[in-house]
Formats: sequence, C-alpha cells, structure tokens
Amino acid sequence: MAVQLGIIGAGRADDELKALAREVGELAAARGWIVVCGGLGGVMEAASEGAESKGGLVVGVLPGDARSAANSFVTVSIPTSMGHARNAIIAQTADVLIAVGGGYGTLSEIALGLKMGKSVVSLCSWTPDGSVVSAENPADAVAAAERALERRRGKN
Amino acid sequence: MAVQLGIIGAGRADDELKALAREVGELAAARGWIVVCGGLGGVMEAASEGAESKGGLVVGVLPGDARSAANSFVTVSIPTSMGHARNAIIAQTADVLIAVGGGYGTLSEIALGLKMGKSVVSLCSWTPDGSVVSAENPADAVAAAERALERRRGKN
Amino acid sequence: MAVQLGIIGAGRADDELKALAREVGELAAARGWIVVCGGLGGVMEAASEGAESKGGLVVGVLPGDARSAANSFVTVSIPTSMGHARNAIIAQTADVLIAVGGGYGTLSEIALGLKMGKSVVSLCSWTPDGSVVSAENPADAVAAAERALERRRGKN
Amino acid sequence: MAVQLGIIGAGRADDELKALAREVGELAAARGWIVVCGGLGGVMEAASEGAESKGGLVVGVLPGDARSAANSFVTVSIPTSMGHARNAIIAQTADVLIAVGGGYGTLSEIALGLKMGKSVVSLCSWTPDGSVVSAENPADAVAAAERALERRRGKN
Repeated sequence: MAVQLGIIGAGRADDELKALAREVGELAAARGWIVVCGGLGGVMEAASEGAESKGGLVVGVLPGDARSAANSFVTVSIPTSMGHARNAIIAQTADVLIAVGGGYGTLSEIALGLKMGKSVVSLCSWTPDGSVVSAENPADAVAAAERALERRRGKN
Repeated sequence: MAVQLGIIGAGRADDELKALAREVGELAAARGWIVVCGGLGGVMEAASEGAESKGGLVVGVLPGDARSAANSFVTVSIPTSMGHARNAIIAQTADVLIAVGGGYGTLSEIALGLKMGKSVVSLCSWTPDGSVVSAENPADAVAAAERALERRRGKN
Repeated sequence: MAVQLGIIGAGRADDELKALAREVGELAAARGWIVVCGGLGGVMEAASEGAESKGGLVVGVLPGDARSAANSFVTVSIPTSMGHARNAIIAQTADVLIAVGGGYGTLSEIALGLKMGKSVVSLCSWTPDGSVVSAENPADAVAAAERALERRRGKN
Repeated sequence: MAVQLGIIGAGRADDELKALAREVGELAAARGWIVVCGGLGGVMEAASEGAESKGGLVVGVLPGDARSAANSFVTVSIPTSMGHARNAIIAQTADVLIAVGGGYGTLSEIALGLKMGKSVVSLCSWTPDGSVVSAENPADAVAAAERALERRRGKN
C-alpha cells in the first residue's frame, strides 16, 4: 500500500509558495508516494505538477461536482460535491500532511488532520500549536513526513 | 427566520468552561435564537442545557449514526454519520459562531466558519488571527455575535 | 426524545401529491412528531406547511449552502452544502420514512433508508421490493409508520 | 483525462456475480479506464482484482476511516469516514456506472447516479425504470457504457 501524502494549500499562491509545493510534489513522487490534494489551482496545482513530472500519481479531491475543475496534472479526480466538507476527506485520506502556505481552508485541514491523529508538517503555513512541525524547505518537510510515518509504523 | 447560533467546543471540558457555555446557551435562547452544536457532552451539553433551560430550541449535529448519542437537552438530533465532516455542517448551519474553549475539532470549525465568511467569537478559545473576536465573558460574546449579525444584515 | 419522521418527495409535484404530503405533515405534527425533509419546494414544502399549520417543528436538510433556500415553513434549516449526499443525512435523521411520489432523489433516500434498517412507507411512490409498505392514503401511511416505530421499540 | 468507470455492487456476492464483476474490471482496465468502486469485498473486490490484473488503476471510496479496510487490489484508497453518504461520492466520481447484482446500497448508487444525469448499466442488478440499460454479459455492459460516454461527448 503506497503512502498517500496530503499536500494542502490555497488555490491562489505566489510564485515562491508554488515553487515550494512543486518541489514537495516532486520529492513525494520520487519516493513512490501518491499525492492527495484539493485538485484545484495554486498550491494544489503546483504540487500536482511536481508529482506528475516525476511520474507520480495525483488524486484531486474536489469540492464541486465536475471532474473538469481538476487541474491538468491530476490522475484521479474525486468530485465530492461536498464543498468545504471535502477538506475532511483530504485529511482522512492522507497518511501525513504537508501544508504549504494557505488560508482558512488549509487551517481547517490542519486542524482536522490533527484531530484525526495525523502528523502535519508546516512549510510557511499555520502552526496553531507545537504539534505541527515547521520545516525550512521542501526536503526538510518530506523528511519530517517520512519520520512521522516511521513513528506511526513503529506504533502499529 | 430565527437566528441559528453555533456554539462550539470540546466534548470534555472543565466546570469553568461548561459554566461559560451554559450561560451562552441561556443568553441565546433568551433572544429567541436557535442553538446549533455538536450534540455531544462537555461544552456542547452545557450549551444545550443552558438553552433548554430558557425554553430554547437546540439542534445537535452528531458525528455518528445514532440519535441516542445526543445529550438529553437536544431538541432535534441530526445523526450525520459523517464523522469530523459534520464540523463543516455545523459551521454552515450557524449564522455566527461562538467558540468556548476547545481542541482541534473546534479549531477546524472556527477555520471552516471563517472560510465560509461567518463571524467567529472566541471565549477562551483559539484565535488563529485577528479576524476572530475575543470576548471576555458570555454576555460580551453574545453581544459580539449580535453585532456581527447586524453588520451582515446591513450588507445584504 | 420526539419521533423524527422523514417525509421525502420531489421538489416539483402536482396538486394531488402536494395535498397528500400536506396531510402527512399535519398528522405527524398532531402526534407531536418532528418532520424532517429536504427543505425545498414541492412535496417538501407541502409537508412542511402541513406540519407547521399544526404547530409542528420542521427540519429542512438542504443540499446547498444557504438557509434562504428553505421553504417558509421550515423551523430549523440545515444547509449541508453537500448536494445529493444530504439524502443520506435525511435517511439517517429519520426514525421512519414516508415517501410521497418522487423521482430518483426520493428513490435514493428510500434505498439509503432501507440500507440503514429504517422502515419506509410508500404513498404513490417507489416500491423497489416488498420491504417498502404501500399506503393508500395519508392516515394509512402515518399509521404504518407508527406500527413500524412500535416494532422497533419492541426490539430495543 | 481517463474515463472513470464506477463498478457498484454488494460486499457479499456469490461466485457468479464475482466472475461478472471481475470481467467488467478486466475489460475496463484494458480500455485504459480507471475503476472506481466502494473498495471493500464481494463485487467491489472482484472488480478491483479484474482491473488490477490488467494493470488498471483502482480507486476505492471507503465508508470508514481506515485505508486498511480496502481490498488488496485497490491502488488509491479514499477513506471518507462518511458511511453511506460515500455512495454519493462514488456516483459523482464515475463518468458512467455498471451495477453488478447488489442490494439497497447499490440501488441508492443507481438512483443517485440517475439523479446526477449519469448513465447506468445493470448486470443482474436493479432496473428501477427504463432509463437503466440491462446488459446480458460483461462485454455488453462495457459496450453500453462506452456508447453512453460517446453520447455524452457528442452533447458537450
């Protein structure tokens, strides 16, 4: 069962955040991880593009009812038609989450992930309390995610 | 159409938080507002008890599939069977939200509410950024909620 | 804990079906039951109107994100923002279901209700198999719902 | 954008139905289609196994909160934690649906698919009305699904 990494962030983002997200996507795909995201633009699209460029599989969990809303790097599109409640599906689907920037939607995914017991890594994103690990760059973020997965495996 | 006030907070809470939640519930019911909450124990139960004691109507939006999980002060129970995604329904159902203490679930409801453009008042709860209004006591919190509703009416 | 009766049916309906739904709503409210419906027009509005006319409490579980979409007889509106998935919430929230006419949305609610082990009564509606009880008129339908509730209480 | 075929059916099924589901999965994967299903056992597992055996990609949209509930042929698991409401996500995610046998859950997916305007093909399954196409065997079912997709493309 391949790792499913959630990469979360806003639908609009500046070039710097998009570059970070793209690199996280690349690093995840290079490890054989599946990338799960919200399927839209901004950070979601950049992460998708990065993963796709390394031959990775990208899942876009969309808020609306149309597959056509997915960015062009998404392999599997899940049009939930559930609006913001799809954030809970993203958090549940991810084994571990990396947040790149982001607004209130991203904060809700971070909080839902923590509530579900998932590890969350922040890259220039919210750190509501000490349980979110701050990373300095994409390589650090992916390494932190990897360590979190290993700890979880150790527990099970 | 009666105001629907969301009172959000954790399922386990100390006596102080429960007293605050109870008073918020009382004040809301005294205004003829419907109280919407997660329907379980702790802050949710205290808010429900307060509203019920003043003849108010209490809606419990439950994570599980059984009405019987609702606390005994709930008038209408909505067993969503949707787990944490029910937090999005609470945020959407509330015209305005008052958070009383709370953990990650409450933080997710605050973030979802803000994403949906709802005003959020914090009573000893999370204040992720300046858009959440901090209140000193239940009367302040309900007054802040009332002002937020009036501003929204002004816009519409 | 008051009985929660689901009255399900289409958003567009002819006068005959609406008259049936209105009477089901009246009979339910007269028994002190809460009426749960989809909150929109047609059969949903007629059922709401009937219940409201007898002082009953009406819950409208809406597919969209705005309370304003609810018909004017709804007491509590739950804007789920979950599209057709809200049908599962209606089925879960109802202790027993009465279907009045209806299209595919209603059929999905009947099927979901049966899957969840709820009794379903059909009034000029779908009867996919023998487990749905056909009623001749509103009084029969409500009586059948009452018997189903008594059988369930007997089991618990 | 690859076609996403929903294969729906019960979690317990006899060998005959499982053989049909497996063949539908094989034929779909051979066309380069992604198979979307409920991710559990019975018809879902057989369809997954068939698709996986031809190198196809299989998406399991699970009712619970654990990826580990997915059958071993699923590529991407989506633990929705939304119970039966996940049926709406399956219907929405599929471009076209093939039902193989099935109980009330399958009927709800058929009804939800029809409500969403999707074409539904029945292989030994429910045919609530004439809008569901009955197929005699897996090859017929996949051919009917293909024709439905072509009609839809013609409209767009």
